[in-house]
Amino acid sequence: MGAVSTADPAWRELDSGACSIARTLAVIGEPWTVLVLRDLLNGVRRFDELVDHLGIARNVLTRRLATLVDAGLVETREYREPGRRARHEYRPTPAGRDLRPVLLALMAYGDRHHAGPDGPPAVVEHDCGAPVEVREVCAEGHVLTPTDRVRTRPGPGSRRRVGAGGSAG
Amino acid sequence: MGAVSTADPAWRELDSGACSIARTLAVIGEPWTVLVLRDLLNGVRRFDELVDHLGIARNVLTRRLATLVDAGLVETREYREPGRRARHEYRPTPAGRDLRPVLLALMAYGDRHHAGPDGPPAVVEHDCGAPVEVREVCAEGHVLTPTDRVRTRPGPGSRRRVGAGGSAG
Repeated sequence: MGAVSTADPAWRELDSGACSIARTLAVIGEPWTVLVLRDLLNGVRRFDELVDHLGIARNVLTRRLATLVDAGLVETREYREPGRRARHEYRPTPAGRDLRPVLLALMAYGDRHHAGPDGPPAVVEHDCGAPVEVREVCAEGHVLTPTDRVRTRPGPGSRRRVGAGGSAG
Repeated sequence: MGAVSTADPAWRELDSGACSIARTLAVIGEPWTVLVLRDLLNGVRRFDELVDHLGIARNVLTRRLATLVDAGLVETREYREPGRRARHEYRPTPAGRDLRPVLLALMAYGDRHHAGPDGPPAVVEHDCGAPVEVREVCAEGHVLTPTDRVRTRPGPGSRRRVGAGGSAG
């Protein structure tokens, strides 16, 4: 309510584009791209299966898969069914698999805020059979709750904004 | 390589839209929306400050903030600077704060795959001063590595697909 803004001065002086969130969104921020990756991580790997399961237009899927392949998140592999010509299926690369925590965090949020009375649409289980969740943990071993405060500090790859410190009122 | 697709049959039979990832992306999948939320969580809360820090067009920011307010992720609060008319600032709601693990997971991915030789642009610290990360942990206490396998199972709110089991080849 007060007249004083609480923006972290360090954050405000940082170049908004030199940001790992922005850089990742540049690849996967488009919703279909994330959902294609979700299905690939769940083992849906063939073009016609993806069209069928996602209900996505074929030309849109072609473009989204090309984006994912160009970004190094997905690779193609040839397969051949008896009596038919060779075709490709799409598999997540190790880099693509590294996005699993992003999808699990999106899922946890949706489970909590958009699931409705029936509960979560799906449960992700570890190989041991127990459900998997994402947790915020600090290097000292504290498990954070949503109300715990965090601070964003410049990292080694930060860029100071051109003109930072000048214009903000 | 083989002709057998490895899609989890349970996943393939589920309605692709009854998914907490899809539902969350329907709100925050648009990249600017996520970056506006990122700046709000970092304490940048005034319209002109957001325009300045994000380099976003005013009309686009107006629409993105309206989306976030409508979705219950952001609320407005009045403030008044001496001698000026009352204005609004934008603050994340508790629901908006619940998206922090999504942003931290995006950030961790970008730090790993897009940071370049200088290293991460920013570091998020807990109140105790130690850096924060997101971890995949199962209910049995196992901390997962990216190569650990997971399975997606139908949850209580799953919807079976219309025609599931019929068309897939």
